[in-house]
Amino acid sequence: MSQAPPGGYSARMIVVTGRVRIAGSSRDRFVEVASEMCRLSRDEQGCGGYRVYGDLERPEHYVFVEEWADEDALQRHFAEPHTARFLGALGELLDGPPDAVFHTTAASRRLVPGQGLVPVD
Amino acid sequence: MSQAPPGGYSARMIVVTGRVRIAGSSRDRFVEVASEMCRLSRDEQGCGGYRVYGDLERPEHYVFVEEWADEDALQRHFAEPHTARFLGALGELLDGPPDAVFHTTAASRRLVPGQGLVPVD
Repeated sequence: MSQAPPGGYSARMIVVTGRVRIAGSSRDRFVEVASEMCRLSRDEQGCGGYRVYGDLERPEHYVFVEEWADEDALQRHFAEPHTARFLGALGELLDGPPDAVFHTTAASRRLVPGQGLVPVD
Repeated sequence: MSQAPPGGYSARMIVVTGRVRIAGSSRDRFVEVASEMCRLSRDEQGCGGYRVYGDLERPEHYVFVEEWADEDALQRHFAEPHTARFLGALGELLDGPPDAVFHTTAASRRLVPGQGLVPVD
């Protein structure tokens, strides 16, 4: 069973790491709004993946990992009502400035046992 | 306080998402070996970040998020004794095939409030 995003990978896709810090007292509410955001975003056209994770070393730190097929898909995502709703809710939960970085890829490789790093698409 | 990797971002850096599935019964051991791997890797030259996170929606799923300055740094990382040791330990804990994808970046942008997506470096 592969855990790759259903949309696969391609050059010029956009990989996002969105890091946030949330106080322990806000964790339950954060999990609720973040999980809803993930579900709604994964249903968007051009979304190859959208997940939220908690840091195993630092309990108040979280990261969103997203994959978007191209810039158009990302811009449509920004224009979605659920994105605005999420950012509003998130703003009230943050315990420090967020750091969302959007990487446009030149190439991607996958680690394949016995073969090393193999180009994807 | 910025949560950006201490090494910053640059074009042609390598962003890694390493996804694994670990049974609940192996979680404690996984957290132990993964945390050690993160600490040792962050000390390597050219490592801009190396963190492990647990999926908030799917308890048995985890992701490593890594940033490497360039291909040389990544290859040195593969040659480290602690990398071999970690991969050996991880192999005994996996509950399904891992999926490690290595993205070489063409450009990176950061979301800045009021300014939108701003080029990094």
